[in-house]
Amino acid sequence: MSLSDAFERLKLTEHRLEPGHVWLVGAGPGDLRCLTLDALSALDQADALVHDALVQPDVIAAAANAEKFFVGKRGGRLSIPQGEINELLVTLAKAGRKVVRLKGGHPTVFARGAEEAAALVEHGIPYRVVPGLTSAFGGLASAGIPVTMRGVNGAVILATGFAAVSDDRPDWAALARTGQPIIIYMGLTHLAATVAQLRLGGLGDETPAAVVENATLPAERTVVATLGTLADAVKRENIVSPALIVIGGIVPLRAQLRGDE
Amino acid sequence: MSLSDAFERLKLTEHRLEPGHVWLVGAGPGDLRCLTLDALSALDQADALVHDALVQPDVIAAAANAEKFFVGKRGGRLSIPQGEINELLVTLAKAGRKVVRLKGGHPTVFARGAEEAAALVEHGIPYRVVPGLTSAFGGLASAGIPVTMRGVNGAVILATGFAAVSDDRPDWAALARTGQPIIIYMGLTHLAATVAQLRLGGLGDETPAAVVENATLPAERTVVATLGTLADAVKRENIVSPALIVIGGIVPLRAQLRGDE
Repeated sequence: MSLSDAFERLKLTEHRLEPGHVWLVGAGPGDLRCLTLDALSALDQADALVHDALVQPDVIAAAANAEKFFVGKRGGRLSIPQGEINELLVTLAKAGRKVVRLKGGHPTVFARGAEEAAALVEHGIPYRVVPGLTSAFGGLASAGIPVTMRGVNGAVILATGFAAVSDDRPDWAALARTGQPIIIYMGLTHLAATVAQLRLGGLGDETPAAVVENATLPAERTVVATLGTLADAVKRENIVSPALIVIGGIVPLRAQLRGDE
Repeated sequence: MSLSDAFERLKLTEHRLEPGHVWLVGAGPGDLRCLTLDALSALDQADALVHDALVQPDVIAAAANAEKFFVGKRGGRLSIPQGEINELLVTLAKAGRKVVRLKGGHPTVFARGAEEAAALVEHGIPYRVVPGLTSAFGGLASAGIPVTMRGVNGAVILATGFAAVSDDRPDWAALARTGQPIIIYMGLTHLAATVAQLRLGGLGDETPAAVVENATLPAERTVVATLGTLADAVKRENIVSPALIVIGGIVPLRAQLRGDE
């Protein structure tokens, strides 16, 4: 039995992408195999694809019939201001295109999908959010770190490292005081400031920490450290974006669940 | 162009499920279209499928060649103790079966996948975690609530309502004091206790709150309330499991992003 046969057997009912509509679609963490059936359907129907730098070429190629618009931003530097991306989506929709706005991960998890949705609503353009696998959960799965484990954590916190310097920055010390694991997206740029604030919340230098670079991709690397040694480890191993930071009691489970101990 | 053609064009490289191996696979929030390509490949290759109550029949049917083992638990009542599920996985693997352990959502997000992985490691059984779309993010997308929005939240907290009564219960008051939105899985059973503890953390009665029942399924319903009125609303609308509770500043964005205001 081939996978194609399995796909045929599903007899999937597709949502229909209408001309003049925009779908905000999550591409998942990177690996093509993490794409959802709904996202594949979106890419197949699109005649205009607006995408980021974090989306992989084989995912983009699935939109075989779409004109491609690259609006990449990476590491917080905007190549194209968000307002112009919003305008592009509005313009394409008003021209009657079937528009897919494709983002790495999930469209509304630290990805500005909600802002784009707000712009579309403002212009009366119908849209839909097609969820994607968020990078943190896909990345931790391939890195061998569970998101939760009974007896360890009944909650988990997701945060963006860029919020460290923006108006909506969380109170990192308050996050630390919850005692729950924290997964930080795009955490490298402001790592030192983030670690300092987590310490203010009472997290000690010995708190387990890890960084996952290029999550789910062939180049994925995981470096395990502690809160006290994390910044040095990132420097020594030359870890670059995209990278996830993981802090707390779920990190040591990696060794256990890999059978290392 | 049909979706099958699009699928063929992907030329997907499948991971191979070997005899004697177990894959812990996330089925996503419910809707078949939320299944990933990797999960579909897993279901196609399985000759033994061990699944929960939350997995939908059309997803289970994708495992056309697998003997099905139902080990459902729902609402915290174990129909089969976790230890027996672990034993079943070990027994099937030792018999040389190609085993898929299918769970709603993501295998290690409040789903005891890590415990099953630990049992497999203990018995020297190779396993792999195939990530799935977590119910919270899939559910909020279909309910029209963004997980994050710039200017509103730079972090989000995921918690399980059952942790309210277990050893690893989070300090709900500390979670509340972060000021970040909280999404609670399986939050109905202990809703009153959870709300009381969030109030202790300083969340006022006027804090926006919502409940999403049967997320991503045709029967999905969303009820918007406040922390003060949530328990009454759940009772009045006869909301039952599975349901997600959402608390905080992302809830009012639903009206804005639907164009209701």
